[in-house]
Amino acid sequence: MSAAADTPDAGTGLGMTRRREMLLRALATRHGRKKYGLCLCEGMRCCRDLYLSAPELIAFMVCADDLVDNFPGRDVIRIPRDGFRKFSATVASPGIMAVARRPQPVAGAPRDPFVLVLDRVADPGNFGTIIRTARAVGLREIWYTAGAADPFSDKVIRAAMASQFVIGMREFPDLEAVAAALRQYGYEHIYRTDVNAGADCFTAASLFERTAIVMGSEAHGAGPIAGATALTIPMPGDAESLNVAQAATVILFEYVRRSQLRNGAATAI
Amino acid sequence: MSAAADTPDAGTGLGMTRRREMLLRALATRHGRKKYGLCLCEGMRCCRDLYLSAPELIAFMVCADDLVDNFPGRDVIRIPRDGFRKFSATVASPGIMAVARRPQPVAGAPRDPFVLVLDRVADPGNFGTIIRTARAVGLREIWYTAGAADPFSDKVIRAAMASQFVIGMREFPDLEAVAAALRQYGYEHIYRTDVNAGADCFTAASLFERTAIVMGSEAHGAGPIAGATALTIPMPGDAESLNVAQAATVILFEYVRRSQLRNGAATAI
Repeated sequence: MSAAADTPDAGTGLGMTRRREMLLRALATRHGRKKYGLCLCEGMRCCRDLYLSAPELIAFMVCADDLVDNFPGRDVIRIPRDGFRKFSATVASPGIMAVARRPQPVAGAPRDPFVLVLDRVADPGNFGTIIRTARAVGLREIWYTAGAADPFSDKVIRAAMASQFVIGMREFPDLEAVAAALRQYGYEHIYRTDVNAGADCFTAASLFERTAIVMGSEAHGAGPIAGATALTIPMPGDAESLNVAQAATVILFEYVRRSQLRNGAATAI
Repeated sequence: MSAAADTPDAGTGLGMTRRREMLLRALATRHGRKKYGLCLCEGMRCCRDLYLSAPELIAFMVCADDLVDNFPGRDVIRIPRDGFRKFSATVASPGIMAVARRPQPVAGAPRDPFVLVLDRVADPGNFGTIIRTARAVGLREIWYTAGAADPFSDKVIRAAMASQFVIGMREFPDLEAVAAALRQYGYEHIYRTDVNAGADCFTAASLFERTAIVMGSEAHGAGPIAGATALTIPMPGDAESLNVAQAATVILFEYVRRSQLRNGAATAI
């Protein structure tokens, strides 16, 4: 076996090989994605977004015959539409996927005025939706703890519309490690969302000024953090709780609203 | 065949019968739900919520052996856990479901300060999440147009955590019929969300005072409505759009924030 053969996407020809088929199947697993440092991005909208925002991360594309012309400059393997059944994660494959490199992990001081921390958000749809929404409000990174869904699994990528290739994803073993990093960078004030009581997210002062806001999964909530202030989203209706992606959306857009106010672009209502 | 036999949940015994099995299978389809005026609510959390908020709507429950004691006062059919495979909509059935009556359609003047209108939101997860979030902010009804997912399909019920049994759901054939009803009840000002331009949702005056806010699916947007004002959610990041459930959440909690302000319970920030 040559050295080149150990890199599954290496080689001069761009046809589908048995080795590449095995790679695609491996990338459906967390272990496989870790081993190869690659992941699968499936569907036209996700692939377009990845192509437009981070084309350098695309190792190669796999396209059905009729979709090959959408990605100039990228290596494309062309296969019949029904050939996707073997490795597509979706029931009815959209006939297009990108094999993408995982972006370099983010390091150094946080680049946003506040840090959004997700503690063990295991549902891929919720995790992905939060990543996508964080990008929409202009955040440059998200912190998360082990126990979360793999942000580069196909489901999280689809829910995030490939936003995890653009926004930095920082993983920590647990909330203690998060708190230590926050202290190190001078993000002193930590808020932890609480469904029952706490400071009101619409009126708490300095909520987004060198702070962190920690949210947990709906089932478990965020774990304990020494010295954290409880933060709550007012819910006048009779629901017990909000989906975590909805809760994150409320917080993220409260950040947008306050930023607008501070920039004087808008009048307070 | 007796007359009673035509009502599939009629009969004195509460064992699983062939007729009831056929009913459960029929309720997996839109046609079956319409024919019988019944629907399926699956999973412990959904069933608990339905039981606590609208027990009178439960025709009967189907429970695995170990879960039968949670619903006193309701008729319960007890079956082995692996018996759910035949009619469960989920891959790994939680072993509990309620067969529920569809609530009476809502009529008359709207009961909320503003009307949230969903135009052809076909994705069941998004539709259900919006219903659940609307309930959390205290809305009493949602209007929607034909072309939406069936709000009483199992997926929408699970995403909504059975909130559609509590909040009124009003269906209209199209946006023209919606506009006519709004005029009739004196809800004159119609906003229509637009991803590109329009009044800013955080600063537009009188946004929730006898108005309607129309949102469409992400793929299609809301259809045209004569005289509607465009309403936009500011998005400082570089995302193209928001998931419709996230967009609805931003609008719904802006309503909460302004209500708090008006009630003087909070200080403006």
